[in-house]
Amino acid sequence: MANAAWIAELRSRLGGEMVLTGHAELVAYGFDATYEQGLPEAVVLPRTTQQVRHVLAVAHASGIPVFPRGAGSGLSGGSVPSGGIALALTRMNTIWEVNPEALQAEVEAGVVTADLQRIVREHGLLYAPDPGSASVSTIGGNIAENAAGPHSFRFGPTSHHVLGLEVVLADGEVVTLGGRTSKNVSGYDLVRLIVGSEGTLGVVTRARLRLLPLPQGRASAVTVAPSFQAIQDLIVRLARSPQRPSSIEFLDRACLNLLSEDLAGLITIAPWVQGLLLTDFLAPPQEAVAEAEAAADVVRSAGFEAWVFTGDPQARLWAARERLSPKVARIAPTKISEDATVPIDKIAAFLDDLQHIREEFHVDLIVFGHAGDGNLHPNLVVDERDPDMMDRAKKAIDALFRAALRHGGTLTGEHGIGRLKRPYLKLCLSPAEIAMMTAIKRALDPRGILNPGKAILDVEGRS
Amino acid sequence: MANAAWIAELRSRLGGEMVLTGHAELVAYGFDATYEQGLPEAVVLPRTTQQVRHVLAVAHASGIPVFPRGAGSGLSGGSVPSGGIALALTRMNTIWEVNPEALQAEVEAGVVTADLQRIVREHGLLYAPDPGSASVSTIGGNIAENAAGPHSFRFGPTSHHVLGLEVVLADGEVVTLGGRTSKNVSGYDLVRLIVGSEGTLGVVTRARLRLLPLPQGRASAVTVAPSFQAIQDLIVRLARSPQRPSSIEFLDRACLNLLSEDLAGLITIAPWVQGLLLTDFLAPPQEAVAEAEAAADVVRSAGFEAWVFTGDPQARLWAARERLSPKVARIAPTKISEDATVPIDKIAAFLDDLQHIREEFHVDLIVFGHAGDGNLHPNLVVDERDPDMMDRAKKAIDALFRAALRHGGTLTGEHGIGRLKRPYLKLCLSPAEIAMMTAIKRALDPRGILNPGKAILDVEGRS
Repeated sequence: MANAAWIAELRSRLGGEMVLTGHAELVAYGFDATYEQGLPEAVVLPRTTQQVRHVLAVAHASGIPVFPRGAGSGLSGGSVPSGGIALALTRMNTIWEVNPEALQAEVEAGVVTADLQRIVREHGLLYAPDPGSASVSTIGGNIAENAAGPHSFRFGPTSHHVLGLEVVLADGEVVTLGGRTSKNVSGYDLVRLIVGSEGTLGVVTRARLRLLPLPQGRASAVTVAPSFQAIQDLIVRLARSPQRPSSIEFLDRACLNLLSEDLAGLITIAPWVQGLLLTDFLAPPQEAVAEAEAAADVVRSAGFEAWVFTGDPQARLWAARERLSPKVARIAPTKISEDATVPIDKIAAFLDDLQHIREEFHVDLIVFGHAGDGNLHPNLVVDERDPDMMDRAKKAIDALFRAALRHGGTLTGEHGIGRLKRPYLKLCLSPAEIAMMTAIKRALDPRGILNPGKAILDVEGRS
Repeated sequence: MANAAWIAELRSRLGGEMVLTGHAELVAYGFDATYEQGLPEAVVLPRTTQQVRHVLAVAHASGIPVFPRGAGSGLSGGSVPSGGIALALTRMNTIWEVNPEALQAEVEAGVVTADLQRIVREHGLLYAPDPGSASVSTIGGNIAENAAGPHSFRFGPTSHHVLGLEVVLADGEVVTLGGRTSKNVSGYDLVRLIVGSEGTLGVVTRARLRLLPLPQGRASAVTVAPSFQAIQDLIVRLARSPQRPSSIEFLDRACLNLLSEDLAGLITIAPWVQGLLLTDFLAPPQEAVAEAEAAADVVRSAGFEAWVFTGDPQARLWAARERLSPKVARIAPTKISEDATVPIDKIAAFLDDLQHIREEFHVDLIVFGHAGDGNLHPNLVVDERDPDMMDRAKKAIDALFRAALRHGGTLTGEHGIGRLKRPYLKLCLSPAEIAMMTAIKRALDPRGILNPGKAILDVEGRS
């Protein structure tokens, strides 16, 4: 075997139990939450930064590609390997410090996001990013994709919450970037360069994260509307209202049909309803209710009905929202969750386009998302064993990307480019932007061993 | 004249009135708000991106350094030239768009920050970054230094508010980075790489900025404390309180002495007071007052007095805070405003260190700052004509940087590295970080013509 030398070298440096090469293990680390698949030549499961260092040093010396991964819950194929090493950080899951005085925490890359959220909550603190995958996805994966979620509308995406990073570079050098302060302009912002770079510039092993005081109260205002234009008008009104919501979530008619049982007793969805907005307020208890009531008044003054929910009904509403994605996934074998994002004054036009795409390509398209940020998730439910259906789905995706870009939007708000959206990068980035990105990639990973085929175009500019 | 060729070329491309070479003009564009000075060989005052493009093309072809500048109000020597071209963006001051539906604006780099704030306020919107220099400094300068201000505690620094940028690269190519959405992970985050890079990677000519709904109410809670430890404890309590303040400002005893007339009738400062905290709440009117009262209760429950101010007295308090910097500047000919930032649980230790530095080096050190972010401004008031005093001041600055770094802090929270702090970069950045920054610089500006001597160490690693 030509590969024996580097695998033997990894085994001798790390110990055999950290380096897996059985076929079942290679398959198990060869996919993420998309339909993309690949097969690594070895799976490595390090426990320490020093071990990651060894992996990179061996890979760099041998020119072997390294595909870093967390829980494999990504939605763009960002961690799917093609040969080489699948470097799973999941065993590096220690929360090293929660500092309630400095409002920060230091964690390893493999810590599950919901575990961190739960632990800091015990200190009365909030780790604000809340991707839908939080119960399984890792902080390292969230950093790689700059994950966000409903409450990023108010609190910002992961990049706003990273103070410092420990990163292993392509040649195995360990570097600490950023620091322990929320404001820091000492040289270039390498932290924000790494966040969202999908492991193509270095492997994040540790992160120092910013925490916020935990809001003690929560209330939601709900409204429904008969047209996409009315939905957009309400989103803009809510986004501009002085009691800025923590999130503004949109669910289309197809979502509401899926959730009809979950919403029973909470809200009656009339046949004319084209969409629902679920607006959340996190604040001290009395204020949360007052803000939700004020938001409901904003909606009513525009001529629409609105309802305010607190306590158990509010929890049931959000539980329904959380069940949406799994419910969509059960419609057909393959759920393709897209992530196009448009300025909020273009939401109606984009929803119109999606309607046309649904009809033109005969695809089952279910749309929900973080409407306050213009971040919509058009979900295609397909069967990848049906080549004709997949062909239509791919044409529909192409059309929806082009529509989002036509409205001044982007391919992805929070899922990343990964492998799936890379062919579309040339639609949204200019040759000059692509050249800047490849120049940076070449400067930091000259051999191109870090997660090749992801995030940006090749050093040669190929897609 | 050896230089005649490139100056003639600039004149022929731009027209003579945009290229100044008179001595008085060269001097006028040779300094910023520090004591740093330099002399360019030409001052260029473009009106369009196309003209900036010409400047870079000529400079690139001739290997002439270009020193971009806005209002020259920087506090780190970031725009001070050494020969070459002082490229002043101040004539590019058009606000191209304010879009209240999409909550965004597009402006040229030379727009004065306060002008943008005022115009968007007319639409009920807020451009959140509020550096002390806002009435004179430009958006381009704010982007170059990642400027912040008191309310960045809640809203984040400039980098959180930039959606997209138009940048002229070293060779004159014009590139548009980012876009029109608040969430965007299409490739590397080049926007955040440019923000804070002090014009060393490209010249920002235009920016698309994120706007927020304008809070209609404002209230402040004020407290005083007898020791640095008590001050830190109160900062931590306020930062952790669920009614998260918009800002937590600190003023030391020396500041309070300077402001005694301004504070008369508002608050009586007892002789034992070591510092004052001014905590601001921006929210709907009733909530702002309720939040300030709740914060005052948090302070009282810790055993300290607290007062809540609204309306005219509140405005007078903040006017006093804004007069502080000019008042400090009038004490002696030269005010050196430092910008060290520490985690908030290290503020007391850092203030203790500053006390020792004051005594050891016999310097007049006045400290205020954005305490919620741990961002303190130790101000040295000196006379630069007194070499002994300047020597002691420089030693004091060296000592205060080392103290901040010892506490896990940074050299600069919002003023940037510029020319003044560059010699200290090696104290806070590892060789690996310096190598990453110089690799990026080399990739994007291989001839090193963009603002050489600023922000990072030389391509050769020299300070």
